[in-house]
Amino acid sequence: MALVRSVGMDLAITDTLALTMADDRLGILEEATIAVEDGEITFVGPADEFEGDADRTIDGAGRVTMPGLVNVHAHSDLTLLRGGAQDVPEIEWMNRALGPLSETMTHEDRVAGARLGVLEALRSGVTTLGEYTADARRIVDAAHDPLGARVVAAETINAVDDAAADLGPDDPYPLDAEQGRRGLERNEALFDAYADHERVSCLYGPQALDMVSPDLLAEIRDRAEDHDRGIHMHVAQGQREQRQIEARYGDGETTVSVLEDLGLVSDRLLAAHLHGATCEERRRLAHAGVRMAANPSSIAAIDGITPPIVEYREHGGVAGVGTDQAPGRGGHDFLRELRTTALLAKTKRTDPTAFPAWAALRVGTIEGARTLGIADRVGSLEQGKRADLVVCDLDHPSVAPTVSEPLHTAVPNLVYGGSGAVVETVVVDGAVVVESGTLQTADENEVLETADERAAAVFDRAGEDWREADSVLVDRVADGWL
Amino acid sequence: MALVRSVGMDLAITDTLALTMADDRLGILEEATIAVEDGEITFVGPADEFEGDADRTIDGAGRVTMPGLVNVHAHSDLTLLRGGAQDVPEIEWMNRALGPLSETMTHEDRVAGARLGVLEALRSGVTTLGEYTADARRIVDAAHDPLGARVVAAETINAVDDAAADLGPDDPYPLDAEQGRRGLERNEALFDAYADHERVSCLYGPQALDMVSPDLLAEIRDRAEDHDRGIHMHVAQGQREQRQIEARYGDGETTVSVLEDLGLVSDRLLAAHLHGATCEERRRLAHAGVRMAANPSSIAAIDGITPPIVEYREHGGVAGVGTDQAPGRGGHDFLRELRTTALLAKTKRTDPTAFPAWAALRVGTIEGARTLGIADRVGSLEQGKRADLVVCDLDHPSVAPTVSEPLHTAVPNLVYGGSGAVVETVVVDGAVVVESGTLQTADENEVLETADERAAAVFDRAGEDWREADSVLVDRVADGWL
Repeated sequence: MALVRSVGMDLAITDTLALTMADDRLGILEEATIAVEDGEITFVGPADEFEGDADRTIDGAGRVTMPGLVNVHAHSDLTLLRGGAQDVPEIEWMNRALGPLSETMTHEDRVAGARLGVLEALRSGVTTLGEYTADARRIVDAAHDPLGARVVAAETINAVDDAAADLGPDDPYPLDAEQGRRGLERNEALFDAYADHERVSCLYGPQALDMVSPDLLAEIRDRAEDHDRGIHMHVAQGQREQRQIEARYGDGETTVSVLEDLGLVSDRLLAAHLHGATCEERRRLAHAGVRMAANPSSIAAIDGITPPIVEYREHGGVAGVGTDQAPGRGGHDFLRELRTTALLAKTKRTDPTAFPAWAALRVGTIEGARTLGIADRVGSLEQGKRADLVVCDLDHPSVAPTVSEPLHTAVPNLVYGGSGAVVETVVVDGAVVVESGTLQTADENEVLETADERAAAVFDRAGEDWREADSVLVDRVADGWL
Repeated sequence: MALVRSVGMDLAITDTLALTMADDRLGILEEATIAVEDGEITFVGPADEFEGDADRTIDGAGRVTMPGLVNVHAHSDLTLLRGGAQDVPEIEWMNRALGPLSETMTHEDRVAGARLGVLEALRSGVTTLGEYTADARRIVDAAHDPLGARVVAAETINAVDDAAADLGPDDPYPLDAEQGRRGLERNEALFDAYADHERVSCLYGPQALDMVSPDLLAEIRDRAEDHDRGIHMHVAQGQREQRQIEARYGDGETTVSVLEDLGLVSDRLLAAHLHGATCEERRRLAHAGVRMAANPSSIAAIDGITPPIVEYREHGGVAGVGTDQAPGRGGHDFLRELRTTALLAKTKRTDPTAFPAWAALRVGTIEGARTLGIADRVGSLEQGKRADLVVCDLDHPSVAPTVSEPLHTAVPNLVYGGSGAVVETVVVDGAVVVESGTLQTADENEVLETADERAAAVFDRAGEDWREADSVLVDRVADGWL
């Protein structure tokens, strides 16, 4: 037996059940030790092959240690509006329920929402967020970076003129070329700002095919190729988008057919949603290497639809799971989202074997990292990778008991029983950001109090517009339900 | 203003957002006080109309106080087998995945599982469980009663001879009249034992139409009428049951048609599941006053089916939600179950307005109490009712922020964002059973350690039979997935 000796080690997790994801299964290791030095994983293996003194040792007995969870698609700033838009018809969600609230948000409100969203995500075991947001640099600077999260940030590029709100669904939105260009320049500044940041990487963020011009998309495509960068885009979100595409590009055209014509369909593209595409179109996207972000709770809550993640994986596509936005689906607890993904998939297909727990854990870690294009650095517990990991308590009443024979019940118990409540320790890039379930990088109370205060002010300012927008929620308030 | 004065009060919750469920909405009261004396609610109303000194005061600021959650259908003892049976085809679930494990359980194992299940339920805000189990008296004596839960217990009456395991699906199971009668006598003893217990009430528990003889069912029907008692039964669970009914009662007969012929369809009946019935049959049951127990996560996990609770309520039927069993659906976190109920309903109907948050909170409280036949005593916060209530923290990162204008976002945030993690205080019959999220009526560590030890031994003893039963999980272990 070759003992691995290490000096100057920062952190060791000992005697743990490790799910490393280092092979094409879950990489299950019992009584494992994981060691971290300078933000990097330096050892993963049997405890008896390891010897060393760490500055800090976490007893992993009765615990699972696995790669940090990867949430591939989130709008963290909207966490401030939690509870503001749900249980409404799809056609009302954006403009009549969420819109009057989100339009009232200042930059400081958005920061407060993002800080709460990142707090919730980290406490639920998420180490990387695929953030999609406007003014991404300022949001990342104020939320993800100081709170210690890893982030793959895309800047919103949206050229739709404000006048579009008054148009019918089949009138193509007027596009403002200058507005689109300003978005692209903010996106370029985002790349520049974080060129050398270990925890922040960036993507281009054209919002959706109906919201940017083909010229601008062609430019984004060319820049992505020139600089070897990726693109994060909402693709095929449903009927409203499809009507815009036909109005702009002609009858019979679809989001996918136009993106193919524009040369956007490649392994550079991370496509959120895809429920508005056909099965055949999804097959083509998967074969072209397009990565999918599925957001089950969000799309269930907004559209009443189950995202086609199981089908996409059957086509051979790479896919991850995201929590999208809080107003609608409730929040960013990521183990809960994996459970929701599984139960929605099972009922969608009338198949209790669909999206099993083991697939959920891979999708939530290494496949999520592949989806965001960062699997070379994170997503599994392997020597040489950056140290993003989560330690979960198996003695919590929602996941206990667990056994290791004749099967490892920790795997289903984490997915079907677990939630943020079982997350004890979260490490990002070697730094302990959550300990005993509490954020270490900011004052939780301050984050919560600021969010409370700013939410009260936003809902107050927006109140009249919200009532005038007259979503069904306004009626429910009048009826005494809310 | 008439001040209500009270002396000798045991408990007061002050300055809270109350969801009383006392009207036909949510009974929203801001800055409310709730007072409890001798296990009974003595005051619910505006803080400024109340004056009194309680032995104990809970500051309700920043918190929601609502009736204790009512879980209408649970097999708590099976919590010991969490993680033992999920992600398998429906046809394998009972006999090839769960069966080899459950058959190995001793009475002490079942008690250990029930104590863990009740711990998990209480910590998630559940004050009443609709328990369905064998040897119910011994289970309630060892788990529900000492842990301080309210329970509506049914004793399993099952006459199927063990030899049935070797029969094909269309061979009617042989029924052992004596075995059925012994079950009925245990059920009678259960009624006798708890005739005067404030927190324990009882129902007859014929397991399912294919598992008891028509003669025995007729006797149960007559006894229920003579003594004014209810019946808790699994009804129309799917294909396997339907094939048994046709084999026993003739082609074209269904569970519902036979129950109607037997005179069992009345407001005495609490019917679990119902997804195997037709829409027209469910309409008839609802009109006859049959109450429905829907178990969304469980039926999604085992069958890949969404229970028809929204449809049943549209027929005017009374329905509650249950967590059923842990092996399969993960556990007993009840706010999570309400969220799952809503998201599954929305995708089943492609309607984001289906099962809105406000309906979820009524179903989880007062409607659940109606489903179990105890709404005269619990299910709402009203003077004169027994004091079953839950206090939830609105400053938890999964539900914050909340606002009260222009709508009460606490309602959607509890349902879509909440979980057991937001539950601070749980009161059953006036006694504080959970405080600061921790069980007060037993040593949590002892409950968890006992469950861990007994689960390890059960899975170990059952290992060989489990492998020989050869469910798909056995293959997944061999493949390195579990």
